[in-house]
Amino acid sequence: MSEYASHDKSGVSVGLVEKKHLTFATEPPGLVLESGASLSPVTIAYETLGRLNPERSNAVLILHALSGDSHVAGYYSTDDAKPGWWDNMVGPGKGIDTDKYFVICSNILGSCMGSTGPSSVNPGTGSPYGLDFPVVTIADMVRAQKALIDHLGIPKLLAVVGGSIGGMQVLEWCISYPEMVAAAIPLATTTRHSALAIAFNEVARQSIMADPNWRNGMYYDGRKPDLGLAVARMIGHITYLSDEAMRLKFGRRLQDRDAFSFNFNVDFQVENYLRYQGTKFVERFDANSFLYITKAADYFDLEERNGCCSAVDAFARTRAKFLVVSFTSDWLYPTYQSRAMVKAMKKNNLDVSFCEIEADWGHDAFLLPSERLTSLIRGFLERVASEAGVKSHAL
Amino acid sequence: MSEYASHDKSGVSVGLVEKKHLTFATEPPGLVLESGASLSPVTIAYETLGRLNPERSNAVLILHALSGDSHVAGYYSTDDAKPGWWDNMVGPGKGIDTDKYFVICSNILGSCMGSTGPSSVNPGTGSPYGLDFPVVTIADMVRAQKALIDHLGIPKLLAVVGGSIGGMQVLEWCISYPEMVAAAIPLATTTRHSALAIAFNEVARQSIMADPNWRNGMYYDGRKPDLGLAVARMIGHITYLSDEAMRLKFGRRLQDRDAFSFNFNVDFQVENYLRYQGTKFVERFDANSFLYITKAADYFDLEERNGCCSAVDAFARTRAKFLVVSFTSDWLYPTYQSRAMVKAMKKNNLDVSFCEIEADWGHDAFLLPSERLTSLIRGFLERVASEAGVKSHAL
Repeated sequence: MSEYASHDKSGVSVGLVEKKHLTFATEPPGLVLESGASLSPVTIAYETLGRLNPERSNAVLILHALSGDSHVAGYYSTDDAKPGWWDNMVGPGKGIDTDKYFVICSNILGSCMGSTGPSSVNPGTGSPYGLDFPVVTIADMVRAQKALIDHLGIPKLLAVVGGSIGGMQVLEWCISYPEMVAAAIPLATTTRHSALAIAFNEVARQSIMADPNWRNGMYYDGRKPDLGLAVARMIGHITYLSDEAMRLKFGRRLQDRDAFSFNFNVDFQVENYLRYQGTKFVERFDANSFLYITKAADYFDLEERNGCCSAVDAFARTRAKFLVVSFTSDWLYPTYQSRAMVKAMKKNNLDVSFCEIEADWGHDAFLLPSERLTSLIRGFLERVASEAGVKSHAL
Repeated sequence: MSEYASHDKSGVSVGLVEKKHLTFATEPPGLVLESGASLSPVTIAYETLGRLNPERSNAVLILHALSGDSHVAGYYSTDDAKPGWWDNMVGPGKGIDTDKYFVICSNILGSCMGSTGPSSVNPGTGSPYGLDFPVVTIADMVRAQKALIDHLGIPKLLAVVGGSIGGMQVLEWCISYPEMVAAAIPLATTTRHSALAIAFNEVARQSIMADPNWRNGMYYDGRKPDLGLAVARMIGHITYLSDEAMRLKFGRRLQDRDAFSFNFNVDFQVENYLRYQGTKFVERFDANSFLYITKAADYFDLEERNGCCSAVDAFARTRAKFLVVSFTSDWLYPTYQSRAMVKAMKKNNLDVSFCEIEADWGHDAFLLPSERLTSLIRGFLERVASEAGVKSHAL
């Protein structure tokens, strides 16, 4: 696939896709979680794109970040205004080429996008779980995804790909199921959530829990903690950008007028952007899911898990080939954290490629169209597919 | 004063001080503000330390940041647990030596620490102003301070010193009253509030305004918006530290136990720190004052004020000698912003010294004890005092 052809097809989406659900762990003890609690039944929402080859060797699992869903690319119907969240990367002839690979995108445990989470009905009470939902970890999310991959009859994934919290799941996959992952692409992520990242999440959680409508998580029969969740989302959006990104995107430009308002309405474009992001978010996301997923990210620490005491130990059992990518202006998971990850992988003599992409857009950069990222991922997948002897329709 | 003597006296405070108040603009039109609104009467809380020399030439004006007050050093009574907020810098034999200089610290307009602000009684209604208080700017704060300096009979300040929002006031003093400032020390500050800094302030304001107890600012007769203000303060505390500061101060250390709680209570020390800072803050600070002072900071832009169109133009009329200091890990007002300021000053052939101090503690660094900062400020003040022919008791 030449670069030219890729450009030529850049507007081509995978077309119509369908959201599917797998329900499992329906019998006791259900899915046993890292905390010791268990969950039953467990439903995972997922979507697939492209075709699994007869050898079942061309599957690429894509894992989403905090507020994402299984709708990674394409449209549910011809009326949809927007395609899935990574349509610039996933589709026919794109970086993750659905003409070649069987793409699976799984929603995460704890989310509100079709998978079991705090807004799901607790079979023990007939009401939504709320805070009775057990705290889940990144490893628990991956355990649920493993059930999905088993269900699909795929013995080994060609690649696992994801950014941010999705990248944490990628790393966890390689450590939990080393024999099932041929290659891994962790983007804009970290092996352990830093104090700064925990701090942002904690303040966002406090904002939700300070909203009187939150009512200790049992708000499903009444008003929702929309104001608290909106502020939480605004905090998130600051961390997704960067000083440079904000200067380029907004600077000090005023929103609607040519002078200050001298009141507390919107003056600056950046204020309008944040308020809009906050308001839009509450229409589609559950406040309790925000609490649970941020907590899972905060708990993520490969260096202290499973008796590991260093990142080097953490990667000792992994077998995957890695493409690690960081972005210069990402201050949520800065490049030095990716470098430390790469160093630990190399100490284990793993096959690792690393690239820091020059990007002004902060942590968000991993989701934005980038020829550099597209060509890196395309090239890496082609190499690992070729080395694994994968046959696909278009190869 | 040798460095040794300074060390020797480092524990010496200026002793007991008294909070004073100046009320002015009692007759119409009162203090006319940048917005066009006016305010009457205006009270400014201030404290003084040391003695004014007979020539009235040894006065140093210190200006505080967002939540500060006029209590810069010393104790109100022998029972006080803690001295003023900059006791490590201000006192006998210290960086700003009260044996030599007459130190004035003025609380800012819009604050709740003794000066007129939104919690003050509106003489028109007999109730607290709330949101009827006019939006004030950094220039308005400085205009009020000018009335204080006139009242004290000081024709020219030897130096104006302050960090963060205090640093903005320092710059504003040099531009508004160039003939009244011999030397200026803006620390950890900027000539124009960036989109990132505005974003943090806006989210903090949204958190306050989302609290149902805020009631459009008229909460003084009932419950206060403590939860919203606490979250706002937590956001602030994240910006005062840095990735590096948080790693050194907290890392991923747990607060009270040796394993995760698997609930939404405090797990990490950094969470405990933020909650504590939030809770402590609401005991001493007014939520509306937080709104007004952050708005003043957001409006601050020397490059677009008074018909200026560049930082170079902004400093064209200033006459002060400058010591500009930034801190390596300050990501609220990063060093590149101080460098741009220094460049603009130099283009005007001003006498400028600049130092970037290596510090892990983020924006907070300007308030923490630092021998480097102390010796820079001491040396600069000695030089400008000597060049201005200042006689003081100890000189």
